Amino acid sequence: MNSTIDVLRSHRSIRQFRDEPVLPEHIREAVRAGQAASTSSAIQAYCALQVTDPTKRARLVELTGGQPYVAQAGAFFAICADTRRLKIACESTGQTYDQHLEGFVLGVIDATMFAQNMVIAFESLGYGICYIGGLRNNLPVVDELLKIPDGVYPLFGLCVGVPDQQPTHRPRMDVDAALYVDSFPSDEELQNSLHRYDEVYTDYLVARGAQARSWSQVMSRKLGKPMRPDLASYYTSKGARLD
Amino acid sequence: MNSTIDVLRSHRSIRQFRDEPVLPEHIREAVRAGQAASTSSAIQAYCALQVTDPTKRARLVELTGGQPYVAQAGAFFAICADTRRLKIACESTGQTYDQHLEGFVLGVIDATMFAQNMVIAFESLGYGICYIGGLRNNLPVVDELLKIPDGVYPLFGLCVGVPDQQPTHRPRMDVDAALYVDSFPSDEELQNSLHRYDEVYTDYLVARGAQARSWSQVMSRKLGKPMRPDLASYYTSKGARLD
Repeated sequence: MNSTIDVLRSHRSIRQFRDEPVLPEHIREAVRAGQAASTSSAIQAYCALQVTDPTKRARLVELTGGQPYVAQAGAFFAICADTRRLKIACESTGQTYDQHLEGFVLGVIDATMFAQNMVIAFESLGYGICYIGGLRNNLPVVDELLKIPDGVYPLFGLCVGVPDQQPTHRPRMDVDAALYVDSFPSDEELQNSLHRYDEVYTDYLVARGAQARSWSQVMSRKLGKPMRPDLASYYTSKGARLD
Repeated sequence: MNSTIDVLRSHRSIRQFRDEPVLPEHIREAVRAGQAASTSSAIQAYCALQVTDPTKRARLVELTGGQPYVAQAGAFFAICADTRRLKIACESTGQTYDQHLEGFVLGVIDATMFAQNMVIAFESLGYGICYIGGLRNNLPVVDELLKIPDGVYPLFGLCVGVPDQQPTHRPRMDVDAALYVDSFPSDEELQNSLHRYDEVYTDYLVARGAQARSWSQVMSRKLGKPMRPDLASYYTSKGARLD
């Protein structure tokens, strides 16, 4: 429809990068684009910590589940919700910053919009990216490694670099599975709508040489047991309130 | 730097719209662009509920803090984290979907990336947008109005339409306030870095005809008291675990 939508639609996660840097001016341009995203009442409750130290990057590979591109990508960032400035601002006028769950949710949303704009800027410049949810695998150790201050909540990693692969697109559900008009489908309608996508997803995995599994089977294997059960205790240890 | 970055950088929230619709094919194209965003292991834990009923839109104006554009915009969406399909998928193979905080965080991040891509697609097509965090002002009543199912967590609203204003850009912090390399600033460095931005922000408000206040003063007035303290009890009532 237009070149920006082409950039959005052509996204695939890149997990193999050439041994080439991400230009510093491109990083600053992407961060500026990130900062241009909406931010609730200008709170700007985010930061990107770029990790350049090879020893730390190697350690992060282990901590995020053995994903080698965390070390190999031209650049790696830890994207964080960051409430430190908000606390400073409140205290500078004699107030206390003491937000319940809303403070955490604000930060997660703010930081994610910031990161997604960074990603689109990087992709428009020809780079490839991969988000690393595995950053949440072992946050207490990541915390020590990166010396995370109180009030900062690491959310996910972001690998950026010059792509050295051209993966196929992972198929998404139909538009009608993401857009509802005026009412939500019933459980039964939802269940029925999954059958076709389950087939499409199986075909995609088979075409990639992976084991034949439906989307429902993949989800069930991944989400059928509690994931990262210690997340709440980590974030509250950094000052977040989840109540 | 390129036309996509121009789209990202030229964002401002639009709060006055012409009485013109958002074309249905543009809505579907934007949702498709949203679906093309990264999604953790393809969970696609999101949905957009478009609200077209004028009575509901009028009620949403009240519920979100009296923002008239919630009714006037060409289109309005409630953006939700949506775990219903994940539960169905797990149960279809005899597993239980029972995630701690991680499940909620996954959904918030997934839905926000989806929404931000939608926003960029809409803006690239010439529309203006405004996110409505006020959707979280009174979620139990929004829940009844929109008949939100269990497992769906409304996060924010999204107004889209043909702009009828050209607001100035709200200045952001410097790049160095959002991008750190290998270490975080100390509290003192952070505090010192705010002074310049406080002045820039005051100038911006004065130029808009608003009362002279620094960013720190604005933050303190907004965040110096607990916001939306009932958020956790609402989300847990819908099935989210925050522990």
